[in-house]
Amino acid sequence: MAFDALTTRDRPLSEPALAQLFTEARTRNAWTDRPVDEDLLRKLYDLTKFGPTAVNATPARFVFVTSPEAKARLAPLMADANREKTLQAPVNVIIGHDIEFHEHLPVLFPHAPGAKDWFGEEGGRRETAFRNGSLQGGYFLLAARALGLDVGPMSGFDAEGVRNEFFPGTTIEPNFIVNLGYGSDENLFPRSPRLSFDEAAQIL
Amino acid sequence: MAFDALTTRDRPLSEPALAQLFTEARTRNAWTDRPVDEDLLRKLYDLTKFGPTAVNATPARFVFVTSPEAKARLAPLMADANREKTLQAPVNVIIGHDIEFHEHLPVLFPHAPGAKDWFGEEGGRRETAFRNGSLQGGYFLLAARALGLDVGPMSGFDAEGVRNEFFPGTTIEPNFIVNLGYGSDENLFPRSPRLSFDEAAQIL
Repeated sequence: MAFDALTTRDRPLSEPALAQLFTEARTRNAWTDRPVDEDLLRKLYDLTKFGPTAVNATPARFVFVTSPEAKARLAPLMADANREKTLQAPVNVIIGHDIEFHEHLPVLFPHAPGAKDWFGEEGGRRETAFRNGSLQGGYFLLAARALGLDVGPMSGFDAEGVRNEFFPGTTIEPNFIVNLGYGSDENLFPRSPRLSFDEAAQIL
Repeated sequence: MAFDALTTRDRPLSEPALAQLFTEARTRNAWTDRPVDEDLLRKLYDLTKFGPTAVNATPARFVFVTSPEAKARLAPLMADANREKTLQAPVNVIIGHDIEFHEHLPVLFPHAPGAKDWFGEEGGRRETAFRNGSLQGGYFLLAARALGLDVGPMSGFDAEGVRNEFFPGTTIEPNFIVNLGYGSDENLFPRSPRLSFDEAAQIL
């Protein structure tokens, strides 16, 4: 079937889809034993990669930690409160960003051949990598939910240790870590409050 | 109908939904004249706010620029290449993040009464605000697409000028700006390449 016949463009997704992505989705702290196979991880990347980034820089890098051996390298670097659930999750994903993303711009942003030179200054590169790598982190989390997975993102880990253990000899900086799988309701927090529209937004 | 009867949890969204969010969605550079009403902007915030952030900090702040008067304040601060399309879009959204987000943690993260004190150091607060505000920026862009809208995110603007014009006397830093509406195909770039799985990811 052609895409045109399927498109929902210019219309909202269904309420169940919005619930799966946003309104009923919850950060998970415990996991069922349903496995996550490699094909699904590749599909997850193939959705995430299409999210928009400045100059199509796509600086995010992903390490999918699945084997007992790799988990044994990661677990000691997690904050105490995050260690057990990290070991229990079928997959842990270390999301980092490459400070030297601009080296790829001749391929990624072909219609502006000089784009690489816009990022000659390291401070600006770091800011661009952090902003856009984090945007891609947001796309990743929602792409996982769009595929029926649950996520548990975490900032509590030894960043320098993770860099040395998983990104040695590279220009990749760890950003945050995500537990991934099919969540259980165990240790689920009550939904916390959110700021109202008027507290967080305004219309001018 | 109860949510249980509608849930698609643990299953992927439909292919048209994945296309609308990721695979067929495109950054737009021109806009139809179909308006975006205030109710839809409020619905967009009410989806965005549920995305996960560290300690539920939700540091992102949103200024929806819709009136000719507000657009006239924003336009001179945009990079030349971004000015015309910004004026043409029905809505421009300035996404910032509040460096003093921790003041809200007693309300937003009630099960850890001391959470505010974890962010006593300004450098750490800035990093947390930037990371999580950018994550929320990613949720915002995909929430807009989930509602049938198109987006055109931009980093090319005078950040200091936008801070002074739109966030004076606050602790909010501008992050990026998004054109929002129903896109046209005018000035649409060809889809740029993306890194392959093996270039951007690994499975351990």
